[in-house]
Amino acid sequence: MHEVADMHKLTAIMSENEHLAGHNREYFDEVGLWTVNLMSAPGAGKTRLLESLLSAWPELRCSVVEGDMVGELDAIRLRKLGTEVFQISTGRSCHLDALMMGRLLDRESFSGKEMLFIENVGNLVCPAEFWLGEHKKVVLLSVTEGDDKPIKYPVIFRNCDAVVFTKSDLLPYVDFDIRKATEHIGILNPRAKTFSVSARNGNGIDQFKTYLKEELESYRSERGL
Amino acid sequence: MHEVADMHKLTAIMSENEHLAGHNREYFDEVGLWTVNLMSAPGAGKTRLLESLLSAWPELRCSVVEGDMVGELDAIRLRKLGTEVFQISTGRSCHLDALMMGRLLDRESFSGKEMLFIENVGNLVCPAEFWLGEHKKVVLLSVTEGDDKPIKYPVIFRNCDAVVFTKSDLLPYVDFDIRKATEHIGILNPRAKTFSVSARNGNGIDQFKTYLKEELESYRSERGL
Repeated sequence: MHEVADMHKLTAIMSENEHLAGHNREYFDEVGLWTVNLMSAPGAGKTRLLESLLSAWPELRCSVVEGDMVGELDAIRLRKLGTEVFQISTGRSCHLDALMMGRLLDRESFSGKEMLFIENVGNLVCPAEFWLGEHKKVVLLSVTEGDDKPIKYPVIFRNCDAVVFTKSDLLPYVDFDIRKATEHIGILNPRAKTFSVSARNGNGIDQFKTYLKEELESYRSERGL
Repeated sequence: MHEVADMHKLTAIMSENEHLAGHNREYFDEVGLWTVNLMSAPGAGKTRLLESLLSAWPELRCSVVEGDMVGELDAIRLRKLGTEVFQISTGRSCHLDALMMGRLLDRESFSGKEMLFIENVGNLVCPAEFWLGEHKKVVLLSVTEGDDKPIKYPVIFRNCDAVVFTKSDLLPYVDFDIRKATEHIGILNPRAKTFSVSARNGNGIDQFKTYLKEELESYRSERGL
């Protein structure tokens, strides 16, 4: 393979993505839409966390963008809560990129909304490299995946604002040391907040909601909204 | 982004990969090394399955290739069993490719070995597209990830020989319908075998071992080994 050429091509793709993501960010700030990109391995519970969070936060005026290779399974689940959901089908692509997001922003309106959740394709590697214009990046790590994941997939943990340990109700049945995982994250990314939640029994959902609520309020007050 | 150009570039990368994988396959067949590529989302238990399998199969003469972005955590675990492990560090790349594998084959010898396990980078999307020259592809799906994963990540399930449902000891605590997951896989890929295992309590390990053993014997007898 022509690696040097590939590397130049990749660098060009990444810098084009950054450029387009910058435009998306301008749009978000123009309409006052605080945007959070949710990333995780497949099956870590991004949709389930959104279901719990949005049920516990009925006054939030938000939309959700669902990124999936195919289908609308997660969108259907969230629409049942009355949430406005936009689907992006990535086909064979393993992550959302700023172009896909920009096209959605071109054709949809978010009037009356204050917040946008983006549920990325389930993948602990590639989404880390593609900024979509969002204000915050949140990574979910299911306790069933093992506490070694921050060490093994450092890019995504280094480059996020918060990590949510999900499925904490399963802690008694798996070998997952939250203290160790938190330490590993702290070494990679000292500014990352960490949360531990179970969407099944509701534990920790309020703390994560409070974090998002305070960040949203601070975004809005900075902009005089 | 220059999508048409990107698509041509991608097609060129894929066909170059197929070409190199073909050379790897020639090498495997030349030295009589039956090769299995293990793929899954992060934390589905690929290393844990290998630990159980190799402990239950001490007479197997095998090596393992570990694909990780960084570090040697899994390699260290498997070396404790006395297994010969070769590490490939992919850096920022989200999958092994045939070039990385070919370079390893150039510099290492597998003399005296009959089988090679390749543990791919944890990712349910990209590894599906990069043949490494292996004879069989096995996908692991942890029951904690949800039975909707075959529908949501169809490429990898369509393009494999066997699916192993892992962490079956956690079935009482999660909503995972093995019958439903098996049906979805059957629709995508009727020839795929399915197995259900728990590396924790040992359930199902013997059935999976028997499958591999029979396939290995059939490979060897076809080649008069």
